[in-house]
Amino acid sequence: MKTILGLDIGGTKILGILYDENGKELAREKKKTKANEGLDVVINQIYKVIDNLLEFENSELIALGAGVPGLVDDEGTIAFSPNIPFRDFKLGEKLSEKYAVPIYVGNDVNVAMFGEYKHIDRRASKHVLGIFIGTGVGGAIIIDGKLYTGQGSAGEFGHMVVSADGAYCGCGAQGCLEAYASKTAIQKYISKQLNKGRKSMFTELLEEDGAVLKSSSIRKAYDAEDELAKEIVDRLARYLGIAVGNLINLYHPEMIIIGGGITEALGEILLDKIISESRQHAMPGLLGTVNFEVSELADEAGVFGAYHLAKNML
Amino acid sequence: MKTILGLDIGGTKILGILYDENGKELAREKKKTKANEGLDVVINQIYKVIDNLLEFENSELIALGAGVPGLVDDEGTIAFSPNIPFRDFKLGEKLSEKYAVPIYVGNDVNVAMFGEYKHIDRRASKHVLGIFIGTGVGGAIIIDGKLYTGQGSAGEFGHMVVSADGAYCGCGAQGCLEAYASKTAIQKYISKQLNKGRKSMFTELLEEDGAVLKSSSIRKAYDAEDELAKEIVDRLARYLGIAVGNLINLYHPEMIIIGGGITEALGEILLDKIISESRQHAMPGLLGTVNFEVSELADEAGVFGAYHLAKNML
Repeated sequence: MKTILGLDIGGTKILGILYDENGKELAREKKKTKANEGLDVVINQIYKVIDNLLEFENSELIALGAGVPGLVDDEGTIAFSPNIPFRDFKLGEKLSEKYAVPIYVGNDVNVAMFGEYKHIDRRASKHVLGIFIGTGVGGAIIIDGKLYTGQGSAGEFGHMVVSADGAYCGCGAQGCLEAYASKTAIQKYISKQLNKGRKSMFTELLEEDGAVLKSSSIRKAYDAEDELAKEIVDRLARYLGIAVGNLINLYHPEMIIIGGGITEALGEILLDKIISESRQHAMPGLLGTVNFEVSELADEAGVFGAYHLAKNML
Repeated sequence: MKTILGLDIGGTKILGILYDENGKELAREKKKTKANEGLDVVINQIYKVIDNLLEFENSELIALGAGVPGLVDDEGTIAFSPNIPFRDFKLGEKLSEKYAVPIYVGNDVNVAMFGEYKHIDRRASKHVLGIFIGTGVGGAIIIDGKLYTGQGSAGEFGHMVVSADGAYCGCGAQGCLEAYASKTAIQKYISKQLNKGRKSMFTELLEEDGAVLKSSSIRKAYDAEDELAKEIVDRLARYLGIAVGNLINLYHPEMIIIGGGITEALGEILLDKIISESRQHAMPGLLGTVNFEVSELADEAGVFGAYHLAKNML
């Protein structure tokens, strides 16, 4: 049976799913990335995931796709990855040596958002943007039904300056969206408020969650009408609303998909606030022409997008 | 002889040029728009420009293109034009009734920037952005060598918020690029400074120029080392630099064309400052991959772009 393999290579784990030609899942495999054990170990972990999946009965692999964090060019070369020891590493070429099929390697956010797009495209929208709120803020651009990456790195929505002379961003610049709307920025804001002596459920929630606050905890505090939680959600919606307004004025897309853990945890609550804020920034008449969706695939968006991008190479 | 006609319909004048199939100019015609005399008069002026050009010996028109200020959809319907009495007006359809050839009608900035792109594309760049600094700030997006307009209004770079809670913009929002980097914003800033009692050449220059400050006057004051002129140019470069950084992170294009009267008057002086500022905002490694050009066609970019967009319809 002809099969297509989708991989999501993350900083902590590698998820692979083997699909048939119609996108039906046949098998899945998950392994640790072991990013801190060096490049060769990581490559071996990737091979193991692929090889285990290829043992599926009568599987005849015809294409392979993968999403990886970092800057990836059209040839599948990873200039830099934040959590995995890939530096100017030709992952596409490396995989091609072992697996003689068309191979797609792309940025993880682009690949995952393409997965969401393929999952959601009931209305057959051709021009779609995805904003992904995670540790950072990523983005993806779909034009004429295809992923658009420009010279390779288009869609860095998190590094759109929304506030000149504003908050410092991890990238070194000031006022980037990511400095306001990422999970990192939110947790920093919460800590700052707690250090000021504000009372909030987040004191306990942070103790329970450990180093990284869970998205579900933000929802929990919001539902309990915690003042700080309400403030955080409003602040998040404010900056995402500006960004969404900007993106509408810049791309006039048919659909915007907003994704990531926080988005999925807050759902319509956040989406309604974002739309309401973006009303002040989108040009008259444009906002009403754009459909909004919240991502739905969570951790599986990446593999599903990788499957579709691999399939597109055939 | 097969001919293609390009029109630039502006708020004060209509310029038409008749080209042969290779883009060689055969004849040109200019008439007042007479925008304040109503729609029928404007249409008549457009007909006159076209009909006069079609009298060119042996001309056999095969396509017609036009750029118009305002929101124009893919069908050539103008939702709204700031200076001409077009409201939900089907200009494309109207022209088709009289001239039975393929007709392209688009937003003037898009059309003009496509003209600059066709003029400048020595290096065959496929993904190109244009920023146009005029009364407002406009933009154009070229993807895969074609004008991208999304659902019709993409490229409104002037209404990208660069400073949340910043200066009020004519569109009603706060912090738009246009509120800092348009000719209107610059003149407003100058007037404010002069009213504060600042000494500057602009006091005389504004008297000479009348209601609207000329771009050449800004250059003149800059060359004379007028302090206010230097401040204006730095401020312009600062906000355009942020915008350019954003655009690189969003589109990762091969080329950015910066156009309009002020840009052409200041040339490399402004461009160097913009690039220097955008260095702080573009993601590491991306700025160096983008080529910058200053527009060169001035008033003829529109007709030349209209010619090319008409030709593309054949």
